Amino acid sequence: MLRIVLAQINTTVGDLEGNYQKIIDYILRGRQVSVDVIVFPEIAVTGYPPEDLLLKKYFVADNIKILKKIIVQTTNITAIVGFVDRNKKGELFNAAAVMDNKKLIGVYHKEALPNYGVFDEKRYFLAGENNPIFVLDHMKMGVSICEDIWTPHGPCEAQAKAGVQILINISASPYHFEKWKEREKILRQWVKKHKVFVCYSNLVGGQDELVFDGSSMILNPQGKIVARGLQFEEDLVIADIDVRPARGTKRLRGLQVLSIPKIVHQESRLPIRGKVVPHLQPIEEMFKALVLGTRDYVIKNGFKKVAVGLSGGIDSSLVAVIAKEAIGKENVVGITMPSQFSSSETQSDAKQLAKNLGIRCVEVPIKAIFDSYVQALKNDFAGLPFNITEENLQARIRGDILMAFSNKFGWLVLTTGNKSEIAVGYCTLYGDMSGGFAVIKDVPKTTIYAMAEFVNKKFGNVIPESVLKRAPTAELKENQKDQDTLPPYEVLDPILQAYVEEHRSLFDIAKKTKDMKTIQDVVKMVDRSEYKRRQAPPGVKITPRAFGKDWRLPITNKYKGY
Amino acid sequence: MLRIVLAQINTTVGDLEGNYQKIIDYILRGRQVSVDVIVFPEIAVTGYPPEDLLLKKYFVADNIKILKKIIVQTTNITAIVGFVDRNKKGELFNAAAVMDNKKLIGVYHKEALPNYGVFDEKRYFLAGENNPIFVLDHMKMGVSICEDIWTPHGPCEAQAKAGVQILINISASPYHFEKWKEREKILRQWVKKHKVFVCYSNLVGGQDELVFDGSSMILNPQGKIVARGLQFEEDLVIADIDVRPARGTKRLRGLQVLSIPKIVHQESRLPIRGKVVPHLQPIEEMFKALVLGTRDYVIKNGFKKVAVGLSGGIDSSLVAVIAKEAIGKENVVGITMPSQFSSSETQSDAKQLAKNLGIRCVEVPIKAIFDSYVQALKNDFAGLPFNITEENLQARIRGDILMAFSNKFGWLVLTTGNKSEIAVGYCTLYGDMSGGFAVIKDVPKTTIYAMAEFVNKKFGNVIPESVLKRAPTAELKENQKDQDTLPPYEVLDPILQAYVEEHRSLFDIAKKTKDMKTIQDVVKMVDRSEYKRRQAPPGVKITPRAFGKDWRLPITNKYKGY
Repeated sequence: MLRIVLAQINTTVGDLEGNYQKIIDYILRGRQVSVDVIVFPEIAVTGYPPEDLLLKKYFVADNIKILKKIIVQTTNITAIVGFVDRNKKGELFNAAAVMDNKKLIGVYHKEALPNYGVFDEKRYFLAGENNPIFVLDHMKMGVSICEDIWTPHGPCEAQAKAGVQILINISASPYHFEKWKEREKILRQWVKKHKVFVCYSNLVGGQDELVFDGSSMILNPQGKIVARGLQFEEDLVIADIDVRPARGTKRLRGLQVLSIPKIVHQESRLPIRGKVVPHLQPIEEMFKALVLGTRDYVIKNGFKKVAVGLSGGIDSSLVAVIAKEAIGKENVVGITMPSQFSSSETQSDAKQLAKNLGIRCVEVPIKAIFDSYVQALKNDFAGLPFNITEENLQARIRGDILMAFSNKFGWLVLTTGNKSEIAVGYCTLYGDMSGGFAVIKDVPKTTIYAMAEFVNKKFGNVIPESVLKRAPTAELKENQKDQDTLPPYEVLDPILQAYVEEHRSLFDIAKKTKDMKTIQDVVKMVDRSEYKRRQAPPGVKITPRAFGKDWRLPITNKYKGY
Repeated sequence: MLRIVLAQINTTVGDLEGNYQKIIDYILRGRQVSVDVIVFPEIAVTGYPPEDLLLKKYFVADNIKILKKIIVQTTNITAIVGFVDRNKKGELFNAAAVMDNKKLIGVYHKEALPNYGVFDEKRYFLAGENNPIFVLDHMKMGVSICEDIWTPHGPCEAQAKAGVQILINISASPYHFEKWKEREKILRQWVKKHKVFVCYSNLVGGQDELVFDGSSMILNPQGKIVARGLQFEEDLVIADIDVRPARGTKRLRGLQVLSIPKIVHQESRLPIRGKVVPHLQPIEEMFKALVLGTRDYVIKNGFKKVAVGLSGGIDSSLVAVIAKEAIGKENVVGITMPSQFSSSETQSDAKQLAKNLGIRCVEVPIKAIFDSYVQALKNDFAGLPFNITEENLQARIRGDILMAFSNKFGWLVLTTGNKSEIAVGYCTLYGDMSGGFAVIKDVPKTTIYAMAEFVNKKFGNVIPESVLKRAPTAELKENQKDQDTLPPYEVLDPILQAYVEEHRSLFDIAKKTKDMKTIQDVVKMVDRSEYKRRQAPPGVKITPRAFGKDWRLPITNKYKGY
């Protein structure tokens, strides 16, 4: 019997010392429960993804120093630790070190390097070519890294064919909505085909636009998940797995076999039954992703407090709730900035929300400032009607005020734009787009409503009912409604999903909804807004394709074929 | 004798129809001078780089339709045209079509796919495996694409070893300062080693942050450049090259040989001697890169006019000059926005500059607006001293005013920040960073001075002498000088060049300048400003490493090893 633990930790990119401390801490915790093997996530030493830090002269050397410090701390335990390896030519590998009892047993180099979506691994790494099998007390184990196990005819297949009983995969698999379903499906395929144990150790935590959701798991050869970790939290996922010793190494010919001289089956220890944490419900899952992504961006970047502009609308209300969940009510400041177009209802809703959340609320009216701009521009704009210029100006005054608070008190400004708005450009650059982190930039408006309802159910109607019922409005001119400019969100969001997330063409989309004119209008708005998105702050990715590293459209682009 | 022409054209990304028209136009021009072979740049059909347009369902199919329309227009001429090819599985190739007399003779697929710096080609393309030799009237010719010819043991070597007499390379090689030196060195190596003709057809034009500088060329087997095109302009680079027919195809075994049934040696035509355009002087070269990059961003994105905030400083003065050169004085509007900290000298310099350039100049004082903000924030900021908050506020008011003009009149705002400022974060997000295109974002301050002197020499002292002599100041508080906050630019710029462009470590840099404290301070400022750069507008890349696609640092980053 083998006691295995997946150390689902929250690393920080570049924080080699902090990651080291955390790894050592988890090794100690593993040893306390007499673990045989402890498995860390992908590139745990540097945090994932390190991006161009890998090009810095001493970065890789520093990470190898840390690895060596970890090796000597593995008394009586086998640890599998992700790090960046380097060959003599200086070429880099996304690697897993297998160490035991203060010795490095072997190193595996990732073979399948993802270079699509948010991934750029071929920019940095060479594909591995060695594929060792680790024999631990006559039990054979294969080690792979993330994308490897998503590749049907890659290194995991070679390991399985060589007769390993355990496939270990260390991952940094970025979250999107219900991605765990895809992961579990893939892992079950390995189990089904090869009758192996699968131990999948995933990263947890936020890194710029990415959230890693954890949910690490161990499957037995019968296809049952015998242990599964929390989503969006650090966890120690532990199980005793009953691996029968293999009968010789005949089928390993041609593969490097590395023996880990170890006696497991410590029958004296108390047996542990793996805990299988149930999955969160869909909306709660997304909500927690936003909370974790926001918390980690704020904390890891050294901020303590955040400011949120509260309009009395649903977007800013939801962002305030997320901020409170992420860093606590005492660290969130709401700022209302009424203009002549703000209704008393939205203003009182904003204040009520702040009260319900128990956050501080500051009011800074903007009418006098707006008037001073109009005055300053009156000669140059003489005879021209109030239009989008003056609408944007109000949004920009608000952006400036939020940034003034940020500069004066060191608060991070959270922006409140949703994905539907950012997709079609229904937002003001240097206005409501001003801020350090765009919490809901990947959440479509229709999902915002569902999430607000969830929030009210969970936290007791913190968002005033009238906020949910009011027709969406930017309140930048008299009687303005979003739907004066945009199709209804129930029409808009499915078009956006098809065009943005599913890469579908205009004609494909028209097959479903028929209304070609609306689709064309929407697609044009999306294409035309690329320049705005290029200057948008990062925010949490929760869909298969966000407006981040997985969206690389040129700004200068005359393609009209859609 | 073979008459060859390199069609150095300015394509537009996504503008399939426009690129088609241009290609046909150049084929006609080639035919008028009885050309045997006309060579277009890399992926001329779609423009380069098409980025995620390649993921759109009909984009590649549309580009193949265009290619077919080109093929039928090649009566009596051989044309080599870059396009995107696709196999039956839907996998894409960066390809060159060789067509002659209305027939497609063969297709070459790029083998060396760059995936570093500004390049992401492995994200989209598969590496080619076929490597045909084209036999044109007993002359053997190899075709390759951009990076291929930078690869010593790649497809070009195979072609050379197979005995081709002409290496043809179609490129989209992005400009940086004096990159032509690297290119000519590489091309000479092929000539020297294999005694071949090299015909190098490079793209020209601006695309978002990239500028392609043209300077296409033909080298003879003696290593002499027999023809070279203009830098930064479209050109038809033509030469008669004296290729002796090859003696059989013995050495071609194993390689696919595609015959182009053609009679060249039309001795009746008048001989053409290639024109070798001399290179521009270093500063003029960079200046022209900025002009072209700006012009193409403005025009290709459908703008007619631009606005530039004029402070009376050297940066905005230079940007105004570049804008005038790019799109004409009648399309540039200068906007001065004096505050209580603006000196009469800087204001009169700004107006003098506008007058010298013959551009319209608008003045919008900001003091009253600034006061209205201070008034609105006085309770919340009570008792706190004037600091960076109020400095940024002034910059943001100016950004808002520029954007108001942009919204009202449809002008594109050009920002005026230089590379030294953006590197260390000496700039205001949503303030002086507000705008659509950051003309000099990759130009270090010390180069700005050199360029201003060049400009004054070339255009007759358009920038007032006092602008060049005044100590740099942001004028955001009383008696402010850049050097209160930053090291002198002569100290700063070499540190930045070493850290940003050369990936050098702190310790390496210290070997040269000794002053470890200053270096540490600078490096910290650079690292800390990543969040600002992430929201910066695009601008022209002129150095080996700009703050664009070739700079991918995480924002959340605790690496302290430098």
